[in-house]
Amino acid sequence: MFQEIFENLRKVSPIVHCITNYVTVNDVANAILAAGASPIMADAIEEMEDMSPICNALVLNIGTLNTRAVNSMIKAGEFANQFNHPVILDPVGVGASKFRMQTALSLIDKINFDVIRGNASEIKAISNQIMTSRGVDVNDTDIINQDSIEEYIKIAKDLSQTYQSVIVITGPIDVISDGEKTYLIRNGHEDMEKVSGTGCMLSGLIGAYAGANPDHILEASVIATASMGLSGQIARDQVEKMALGTSSLKIKIIDNISTLDWKNFEEGAKIESI
Amino acid sequence: MFQEIFENLRKVSPIVHCITNYVTVNDVANAILAAGASPIMADAIEEMEDMSPICNALVLNIGTLNTRAVNSMIKAGEFANQFNHPVILDPVGVGASKFRMQTALSLIDKINFDVIRGNASEIKAISNQIMTSRGVDVNDTDIINQDSIEEYIKIAKDLSQTYQSVIVITGPIDVISDGEKTYLIRNGHEDMEKVSGTGCMLSGLIGAYAGANPDHILEASVIATASMGLSGQIARDQVEKMALGTSSLKIKIIDNISTLDWKNFEEGAKIESI
Amino acid sequence: MFQEIFENLRKVSPIVHCITNYVTVNDVANAILAAGASPIMADAIEEMEDMSPICNALVLNIGTLNTRAVNSMIKAGEFANQFNHPVILDPVGVGASKFRMQTALSLIDKINFDVIRGNASEIKAISNQIMTSRGVDVNDTDIINQDSIEEYIKIAKDLSQTYQSVIVITGPIDVISDGEKTYLIRNGHEDMEKVSGTGCMLSGLIGAYAGANPDHILEASVIATASMGLSGQIARDQVEKMALGTSSLKIKIIDNISTLDWKNFEEGAKIESI
Repeated sequence: MFQEIFENLRKVSPIVHCITNYVTVNDVANAILAAGASPIMADAIEEMEDMSPICNALVLNIGTLNTRAVNSMIKAGEFANQFNHPVILDPVGVGASKFRMQTALSLIDKINFDVIRGNASEIKAISNQIMTSRGVDVNDTDIINQDSIEEYIKIAKDLSQTYQSVIVITGPIDVISDGEKTYLIRNGHEDMEKVSGTGCMLSGLIGAYAGANPDHILEASVIATASMGLSGQIARDQVEKMALGTSSLKIKIIDNISTLDWKNFEEGAKIESI
Repeated sequence: MFQEIFENLRKVSPIVHCITNYVTVNDVANAILAAGASPIMADAIEEMEDMSPICNALVLNIGTLNTRAVNSMIKAGEFANQFNHPVILDPVGVGASKFRMQTALSLIDKINFDVIRGNASEIKAISNQIMTSRGVDVNDTDIINQDSIEEYIKIAKDLSQTYQSVIVITGPIDVISDGEKTYLIRNGHEDMEKVSGTGCMLSGLIGAYAGANPDHILEASVIATASMGLSGQIARDQVEKMALGTSSLKIKIIDNISTLDWKNFEEGAKIESI
Repeated sequence: MFQEIFENLRKVSPIVHCITNYVTVNDVANAILAAGASPIMADAIEEMEDMSPICNALVLNIGTLNTRAVNSMIKAGEFANQFNHPVILDPVGVGASKFRMQTALSLIDKINFDVIRGNASEIKAISNQIMTSRGVDVNDTDIINQDSIEEYIKIAKDLSQTYQSVIVITGPIDVISDGEKTYLIRNGHEDMEKVSGTGCMLSGLIGAYAGANPDHILEASVIATASMGLSGQIARDQVEKMALGTSSLKIKIIDNISTLDWKNFEEGAKIESI
C-alpha cells in the first residue's frame, strides 16, 4: 500500500493550499513542487471561498502570526472541512507565547485537523496547554530518543484520540500515531536543525501526500515524514563529502525531495510499525 | 538594436520598484540584481511618493494580495505613470479567485500598464474576464504549442490593442505582442515549472530591461523573456549533467542570468518575429 | 579576547529575535543558524512580551515597513531594553523616503540601540537626518576607501557619541566605532552587492555575536562584520573558480558562515584597531 500512496502524489499532483509564515514560505512552495504537487499560498480572506474548492489539502502554519492571517486560516479551515480536504496544523513555536497558544487552541477548536505536526516541545505544549518552548526550536530537554520514546508514543496516542487527528512528533526518532496504530521513523540527521524551515517543509509535504491520498492520512503522513528525513540524510552525506555548509544542505534537501523515487525510498526509509 | 537594449541594462543599472508577493520576493530581488539592475521592494503607501521618482520601472505582482498592498500598488502605479516609468503587471493566479480578478481589473482600470505578463491561463482569464485557472499554475489545457499558437497570437494582439500594453504570454512557446508586431520565443524548458517563481522573476527582469530602455518596451520584453528562457534551459542542462534536483535548478537559473552576456544571448536566443 | 568572543556564539547559542523585512528574512534566519545561534522572527505585537524574556538579542530591520511591524518593533525594543538585551538597528534605505527616516528616528528616540549598522549612504542619512540614498543600495558617491576613510571615521565616532551606540558602517572598508575606539575591517568583496540581503544577514550576525557577548558589543560587532566579509570573499573565490554566478555566491556565503572556525577567522580577518 505504501508504494501506491507514494506514487499517487506524482500521479494526482494535488494542489496544496498553505497559509504560512513569511520566513520559510518559499522553501515550503519549492518542497511541495519538488515532491510533484502544486502549492498555492493565498492568504487573503476575500479569496478563501474561491480557493478552497480548487485545492486538495490545506496546511496552516503559525510561524509568523497576525490577526489578518488567523482570520483567513479559520475561514480556509472551515471550507476545507466542508470539502473533506485534509487539513494540517503546524503549531510553530506554540509554547513560546500565550498568543501562539491561544491561536493554536482556537484553530483546533474551530477546525477539524487531520494532522497536527510539531517537534517534541510543540506537541508537548499543546498536550499540556502550557508554554515550554525555547523559541521556535525544540528544547534541549525534549529529545525523542530510545530512553524517552515510550513517553512520546503515549503523548501522540493520547493527543490523537483527544483531537481525532494524526499526530506527528518529529525529532531524532519521529513518532506518528492515529491513536490506534503508531509508526516510528529513524531517518534524518541532526544537522537538518541548522536549516530554517525543515519542519515547515515537512508539513507542506504531509499536505501534498495527504491531498493525494485523502483516505490514508496516517500512511501519507508516514511517507511524507520518512521522505523528508531520507532526503535530509542523503543531503547531509552529500554536503559532508563535498565539504559544503548549511545553505548547500538546504538546497540538497529539496533536490533530493525532487529526485526521490519509490526504489530509493523503499531502500532508505526506516519505518517501524508498533 | 537588440544588442544595445541588452547591454543598456548593465550600463544604466535601473532601479526596479516591485510590489510583489512574499513567496518569491527574494528570488525576484536576486534575479534583478543578477541581471545588473537594482531592486527596491518598498510597499508602504506612505513612501510611494518618495520612492517613485528615484526608480526607473515598477512591477506589480498579485501573487499574494491584501488590501494594504493593493492600495500601495495603485498609488505607486499612478506615480509611475506620471513619471512615464514603465509599469509591468504580473496577474498571478488571476483566474483562481474573484478577488484576484477584481483586483487585476481594478489595477488595469486605474493604471496604464506598459506590459502585462502571465501564463496562458492567466492571460486568457484577463482576456475573457472569467476564472479559469488551476491555482497559480497554468491549466493543462492551456498549452501554447504549434497547434494552439495562432489562438494565442490572436489573444495577445487583441488584448494588446484593448489595453495599449505589450502582452507577454509565457509557455513552451512565448508570445509577445504590442498589437502590431509579434515575437515568438522558443527558449526555456518545462522543468522550470518545478521551481517556484520563474514567472515572477521574469516579470522582474522585464521591469529591469524596460527600465533601462523605456522607449523600447516591446524589444525589452522580448530580451527579458528570451534571457529567462535561455538561463533556464542552460540551468536545466547543467542540473541534468550533474544529477541535481529542482532547488539547484533555481540556483543555476539565477546564476545564468548573472553570467549571460550578449555573445551567449545572441547564440542561444530563439526569437522569431512574425 | 577576540577568540573567546568568537567561540562564545556557538557555546551560548543565543536566541536572536528579528523583526525584519520579508525580502531577506529567510537568509537572515539561515545566516543566524549557520553561525550557531537560533533565530526567532516573531512580529505580532501580542507576543512581544512573551518573546522578549526568552531571547538574547533583538534586531530591528526597516527593509519593508508597515505600521503593524513598527508598533511591534517599538514594543520589542522597550522590552529588550528592560532586559538589557543588545538591540541592533538596520536602517535599510533610510535615506530613500521620509517615512523610513521618520520611522528610524522614532525608533532611535524610543529605544536605546546598542548597535546601528548601515552602508555609507544610510549612516550619512541618519547622521544628517536628510534623504540621500539611491534606493536601498549605497550611492556611488558614498564609497569608503582610502581617500574618504577619515570622513567616515569621524561620522562613526560622532554618531556613536550622539546615540551612545556602536556604529557599523559597511563598505569596501568597514568602519566600526563606539566613539572612543575604532576598528577598520578590510574583508569582503564588491560582488557581495550582487546578492540581496548581505547587509541584513550581517545585522543578524551582529545580533548573534552581541547576544552571546552582551558585555563586549564593540568587539562582537567587529567579529560579526569580519566574519561576514571573510565568508563573502572566500565564497567569491569559490564561485569564480567554479565559474558560477550570483545565486551560488549567496549559498556559499552562508555555507562559509557555517564552516568558519577560529583558526580560519584568525588567519583571514583583516582587522585594524585605530
